[in-house]
Amino acid sequence: MRLALGISYNGQAYDGWQSQPSGRTVQDHLEAALTRFAAQRITTVCAGRTDAGVHALMQVVHLDTDIRREDFSWVRGTNTFLPPDIAVEWARPVPDAFHARGSARGRRYAYIVRESPVRASVETGRVGWVFRPLDQQAMEAAAAHLAGEHDFTSFRASACQSPTPVKTLQPVRISRRGPYWRFDFEANAFLHHMIRNLMGSLLAVGQGLQPPDWMREVLLARSRDAASPTFSPDGLYFLGPVYEDRWGLPAEVPAYHWLP
Amino acid sequence: MRLALGISYNGQAYDGWQSQPSGRTVQDHLEAALTRFAAQRITTVCAGRTDAGVHALMQVVHLDTDIRREDFSWVRGTNTFLPPDIAVEWARPVPDAFHARGSARGRRYAYIVRESPVRASVETGRVGWVFRPLDQQAMEAAAAHLAGEHDFTSFRASACQSPTPVKTLQPVRISRRGPYWRFDFEANAFLHHMIRNLMGSLLAVGQGLQPPDWMREVLLARSRDAASPTFSPDGLYFLGPVYEDRWGLPAEVPAYHWLP
Repeated sequence: MRLALGISYNGQAYDGWQSQPSGRTVQDHLEAALTRFAAQRITTVCAGRTDAGVHALMQVVHLDTDIRREDFSWVRGTNTFLPPDIAVEWARPVPDAFHARGSARGRRYAYIVRESPVRASVETGRVGWVFRPLDQQAMEAAAAHLAGEHDFTSFRASACQSPTPVKTLQPVRISRRGPYWRFDFEANAFLHHMIRNLMGSLLAVGQGLQPPDWMREVLLARSRDAASPTFSPDGLYFLGPVYEDRWGLPAEVPAYHWLP
Repeated sequence: MRLALGISYNGQAYDGWQSQPSGRTVQDHLEAALTRFAAQRITTVCAGRTDAGVHALMQVVHLDTDIRREDFSWVRGTNTFLPPDIAVEWARPVPDAFHARGSARGRRYAYIVRESPVRASVETGRVGWVFRPLDQQAMEAAAAHLAGEHDFTSFRASACQSPTPVKTLQPVRISRRGPYWRFDFEANAFLHHMIRNLMGSLLAVGQGLQPPDWMREVLLARSRDAASPTFSPDGLYFLGPVYEDRWGLPAEVPAYHWLP
């Protein structure tokens, strides 16, 4: 049978999602915990690979197994074997036709950035940081150039393995609450480092280093050199994949009071 | 001249506030950074010593030095030499009569506890956790027994060095926002582990393990054995000391969007 799991994690201590020889990735820890709980080797396929330092509120994976347990036993049992910064949030049986990556119609991410003269401390790694005031109108005007189907080569890391640089980005939503900015990104899929690269350029506009229409030039240049440097992974959260209702999976991210 | 500094930190990586031979305390890191910035040995006195794992939003220290710098130079310069989970928030010259500990008329702490079937992950260490639903009325009735001047021996760690177990506790405020509970504690001073011990007993009442009036018996017993076990330091924040206005120090904790 095939099972889908919702996973949350704090990415600060890990070399990203994807399994590495180092063993210091979220996937390595998750599969080790599942394997201990199930007493058989379990491998997983995820909806969206996250970079080192990037958090997830609702990563989704699927796995195949012949053992039967109550849904919540998978949650409680696996969590016993996971480090305290990774948790299984839910488990649901799914049809064999479901595929955590292939069935995802979109992915949602949010960046949380604190605008402050002093850098973070209590929330280090959990928020990005800018000390120059940000101009919301300028960032929204720049972001308007990004919405829709485009060749995002200018925001693509050289290591990117996507078969195509063309992705469809939903309008970026930008909001603030006190010193905290929130940037919401949704696309059918993202290139490697695409959101961190988009943020680098959006923040350049927000800080007045570039005019809003510069974003269009960067996009049309189809060259990584045209854009700003990659922004820190601090404050970047994978909110989760978007699936069709027919799979019956939880669509809502758990309530986190600290999301602005 | 005497200088007061506001300090924030995430306590997860440290053996508490107070300097230790290990060198792994917040005070050790702060004094090392100040000493590098000032190029002279700097020692500090704090308003409230925090336990291992306890965070501070506005710890206050004072120090004496003969070097002169702009206030914000102390902030920016010291932060350069501090680890990313400790920051100086502000610096202000104060009269020699000011004493970070002795001038404090009170201390304020908040506990953030998440009520959820699944333990924390993204916010591990930043919130406490209960999986049984809490009863707000029962906890408020229990807390009412604690307000005022009492002998708090039942909530005192054996290692406590306070000259007296008698402290004056303001009414404990209990509020919730979605799955997050917030408990606000204010007293003239706290005994060692007093808040963590109070929380252990309040949560026992909140979870229905003890009736509200049991709290009065515990208090009157003047015995640590009468109370519940010490609650985890996860989710405990030192909000800061209370000073008289005449010292001219910032009274407000910086805005943190994630405080419920």
